[in-house]
Amino acid sequence: MIYLDNAATTRPLAGAVAEAETYLKELYFNPSARYHGGAEVSRMLSRAREFLVGAVADPAEFELIFTSCGTEADDQAIFSAARRGNAVTTAGEHAAVFESYKALKNRGVEPRFAPILSDGRVDEAALLSLVDEKTSLVSVVHVNNETGAVNDIASLAKKVKQKNPRTVFLSDGVQAFGKIPVRLTKEIDFYSVSAHKIGGVKGTGALIRRKGCTVLAPHIFGGGQEGGMRSGTENTFGIACFLHAAQAKFALLRADGERLLALRERLWSLLDHALFTRISPEDGSPYILTVSAEGLRGEILQRELWDMGVAVGTGSACSSKKPFSRVIEACGYGEKTLYGVLRMSFSPETTAEEIEHAAEAVNAAVRARREA
Amino acid sequence: MIYLDNAATTRPLAGAVAEAETYLKELYFNPSARYHGGAEVSRMLSRAREFLVGAVADPAEFELIFTSCGTEADDQAIFSAARRGNAVTTAGEHAAVFESYKALKNRGVEPRFAPILSDGRVDEAALLSLVDEKTSLVSVVHVNNETGAVNDIASLAKKVKQKNPRTVFLSDGVQAFGKIPVRLTKEIDFYSVSAHKIGGVKGTGALIRRKGCTVLAPHIFGGGQEGGMRSGTENTFGIACFLHAAQAKFALLRADGERLLALRERLWSLLDHALFTRISPEDGSPYILTVSAEGLRGEILQRELWDMGVAVGTGSACSSKKPFSRVIEACGYGEKTLYGVLRMSFSPETTAEEIEHAAEAVNAAVRARREA
Repeated sequence: MIYLDNAATTRPLAGAVAEAETYLKELYFNPSARYHGGAEVSRMLSRAREFLVGAVADPAEFELIFTSCGTEADDQAIFSAARRGNAVTTAGEHAAVFESYKALKNRGVEPRFAPILSDGRVDEAALLSLVDEKTSLVSVVHVNNETGAVNDIASLAKKVKQKNPRTVFLSDGVQAFGKIPVRLTKEIDFYSVSAHKIGGVKGTGALIRRKGCTVLAPHIFGGGQEGGMRSGTENTFGIACFLHAAQAKFALLRADGERLLALRERLWSLLDHALFTRISPEDGSPYILTVSAEGLRGEILQRELWDMGVAVGTGSACSSKKPFSRVIEACGYGEKTLYGVLRMSFSPETTAEEIEHAAEAVNAAVRARREA
Repeated sequence: MIYLDNAATTRPLAGAVAEAETYLKELYFNPSARYHGGAEVSRMLSRAREFLVGAVADPAEFELIFTSCGTEADDQAIFSAARRGNAVTTAGEHAAVFESYKALKNRGVEPRFAPILSDGRVDEAALLSLVDEKTSLVSVVHVNNETGAVNDIASLAKKVKQKNPRTVFLSDGVQAFGKIPVRLTKEIDFYSVSAHKIGGVKGTGALIRRKGCTVLAPHIFGGGQEGGMRSGTENTFGIACFLHAAQAKFALLRADGERLLALRERLWSLLDHALFTRISPEDGSPYILTVSAEGLRGEILQRELWDMGVAVGTGSACSSKKPFSRVIEACGYGEKTLYGVLRMSFSPETTAEEIEHAAEAVNAAVRARREA
């Protein structure tokens, strides 16, 4: 199977799983237990926290709370920070942010959605125009998970704070962390990340927060783990996998990025341009190439490609009545484009040979449909 | 290491981990992906849901939502059901329920705590006297995690509903599920469970809910997984481990219970009764024996026992200023008893030989301290 749906989830890195297995087999103790074995597991959590924060920020200024997934991290930041007035975000957010913003209405907070450009980046001027003295939170996704477009979150956060210094700034970093260079600046208060997008396992995420930002409240109450900010026994195996996967990814981050950028463009060059519209921008994440086979149905192509040995994504799976992507629609495309969206997303394990086979299969599947 | 801290967490069952490994290695797909591989993972989630509900309830009447832990399941039920008036619970609850109830105050709901008896069971008359026409929720832990006392939740739920049929009834079943016989009756609306207490891995829990109870709301918003009730990519490896561990535990539930009851009493009979006060009731869970070495410090004994090759618990680890258990204190014991609490908790893997060695070590550790 040529797996090109790495933005949905990645195959856990065998090395990371092997390193973490001791937390299933020998060091299975509860990290809250006050005997030696518990303390040893607790120290691994500290090491993981230290590495993951240090990979993207100054550990003197930022700290990390483990959560069960990126979605939980987004939700905790949003419901902590958006307690009054209005909260601003973009039409290009992942559902974890978008749906939480919609839920803010029931809590007396007005959600405001800034439009996005055709490549998926937020319209900066429109975003800033929505920020006023009553804005408690602004959220901007770092890498758009459907197009790969990269928002300049450092610059956006700075401009938001210039307009209202009391506004909290969150960025969903799930598709950026471990994939593109990230350095959190002092205007960024929260940054959410996920393990299973970079070779860790499902069930582990984290919220990185600026220590100076004091609005964080628990979203899950109980035994007081994570400094009282996230109760529940820690997913020690998942966190150990996250640590080891992140160590592997960050060690080669720039080299992998350069190689995948070339592979992404190689894939685009091999696709029959008469059959596809390109949606992903050239200056977007090296990990994502989204195209549309105009007028065809992405999910039908997806299943045919599976049978041909290639796994690809479509527009983000959605439970809504519209069978296409809310985000690609917000990019301004019409129905013919929307229905035909295919997202091909890579990992450092993706090879040039796989890219060539995949291009052939994708071209063939679309030609067969067009002729049918 | 003789591991007698299974109420804190269990060693994952090697067989369950082996069965689930395919979800790390081959079937790592996102269960929301609409190609064959995604659908195959999604079917495993359905099988797990079906088995876990069927093990304790009629699947025609109850369904299950996967969460990241028992704590999250408790929280979701509590914050969904307790939206007005008052909410009643017991002084014997796990922190997942107790701390969430305390947080209800900030949401305009009055928390009410019923006293418990000396063995840890709730005082039934006192509990019922707190229920009135404004009670939106009653929560009663099934098996007290610190003493092993079993509350008759079916009877309590029935009496609560007789007093106020609109009151929602939750029971935290984390220490009961897979350990003692459970059958959810129609008066029980929510039942929270956890994988890592029965040989699954940390990071997976579930909320079982009566389909007829419509108060449940999402606690985490996003991609709409779990029927919209719990967003975030599912922890597929953790859920597969939960399924296989539960299958193993439920197959031998009665036999294991009988054997561990005998082992629990054997352990008590081997302890020097001049040194220990017994806290656990005889009719409590076979999985827990809690005693106190009066006047000594449980956490010091715990560390000494670790060095002697025996892992035991103390009163539930707490971040509060009082260095002893809130629950054992609520049982009515004085400080001398409270400081000396040791909890020995078993699993079906616990052997008679381990119990004998552990009894020797515990007696020896306490004698040495007394003579020091």
